[in-house]
Amino acid sequence: MPLWKIYHPPGAFSIEQKKAIAEKITGIYRALPRFYVGVIYQEVPESSFYVGGEPADDFVRIWVDHIARQFGSEEIKARFLAAVGRILEPYLAERNLRWEMHIDETPFDLWTIQGIRPPKPDTEDEKRWIVENKPSLPTPQPESRP
Amino acid sequence: MPLWKIYHPPGAFSIEQKKAIAEKITGIYRALPRFYVGVIYQEVPESSFYVGGEPADDFVRIWVDHIARQFGSEEIKARFLAAVGRILEPYLAERNLRWEMHIDETPFDLWTIQGIRPPKPDTEDEKRWIVENKPSLPTPQPESRP
Amino acid sequence: MPLWKIYHPPGAFSIEQKKAIAEKITGIYRALPRFYVGVIYQEVPESSFYVGGEPADDFVRIWVDHIARQFGSEEIKARFLAAVGRILEPYLAERNLRWEMHIDETPFDLWTIQGIRPPKPDTEDEKRWIVENKPSLPTPQPESRP
Repeated sequence: MPLWKIYHPPGAFSIEQKKAIAEKITGIYRALPRFYVGVIYQEVPESSFYVGGEPADDFVRIWVDHIARQFGSEEIKARFLAAVGRILEPYLAERNLRWEMHIDETPFDLWTIQGIRPPKPDTEDEKRWIVENKPSLPTPQPESRP
Repeated sequence: MPLWKIYHPPGAFSIEQKKAIAEKITGIYRALPRFYVGVIYQEVPESSFYVGGEPADDFVRIWVDHIARQFGSEEIKARFLAAVGRILEPYLAERNLRWEMHIDETPFDLWTIQGIRPPKPDTEDEKRWIVENKPSLPTPQPESRP
Repeated sequence: MPLWKIYHPPGAFSIEQKKAIAEKITGIYRALPRFYVGVIYQEVPESSFYVGGEPADDFVRIWVDHIARQFGSEEIKARFLAAVGRILEPYLAERNLRWEMHIDETPFDLWTIQGIRPPKPDTEDEKRWIVENKPSLPTPQPESRP
């Protein structure tokens, strides 16, 4: 669900760092199946990366879509954004990289994994997805009767 | 309008397959001008692609923006998502690729093609765009009077 | 805040043109700190770019996220979209490129720069960010009392 897209200068991160960052980002989403968390890195050369109209060779731009959950309160938003900062800043400070991120929230009902519509939050099916760390067909529901 | 972005492992699809998938995706949107449907493929090497914190060389991540239409009902959503699955699964199964997709719906009023704001759904102008399969200026409207 | 992603055929723009377009785009957002405006160009080869199911070597697809401000009226939307057209069309016409763009508006509260949540529109803090053209910590607020 969360899809992270990280645009960065060529060579800004080693493969080991990219994996470490992806692991730590995954760790933020404790309530979710781990495989929900996707992270894609993309190198952008200075000639294709502009901030304020100036070419940028020191800028990391992060774009995130959240699908599985929406933030319920200002307090949770602030805590989440601070946690992201704590994860990223050591890697960014090391190379004196500037950074910016923003998150969008997109419709839960327009989302599939392996063609399956993921279980609703905090259901038994979601708990199974967390434990098994992979998608599976929903538990058949008893026919509801009026 | 629909913009499809397909992130995939290098070499996951041949050019012929990429074209075939794009044609089939275009075919889902029967009510729209064909040229509304954009599909962009992007290779992501394993060292830049993480799922659940693990590097992924077998994962296809699809991100879609819908602009021209919004889904009206749960039934239509379910049918659409199932149709997408039927199109993609043969290509994905062939190479044992995992996949995930999500769709966002973005504002109709913040969209242009060739600098023209597309006609509203099911108008005469939209019918002309469908028939001609290209954008054209709107039919002049008689001045509305109070 | 506005993040522009410009997908284009390889070689469609020179570096000088890419910089010039980024500068002009930045200029549209007069009310904002210049460094809010990010522009990322990405080449897409014909074999990965499809419009209406056909491979495209003459298409520019622009995707924009607006965060700092939302459009207040239809008149402002129309004026903004027209201004974008005036900027881009000379570059596109020169090479006979077709183009399409769409904008999404994403939550102000889910956005950070250098780990700092940007100041609200038209505040003293935002004015300072404009003048200094870089982020800085918010002015401490007097404790509000019930």
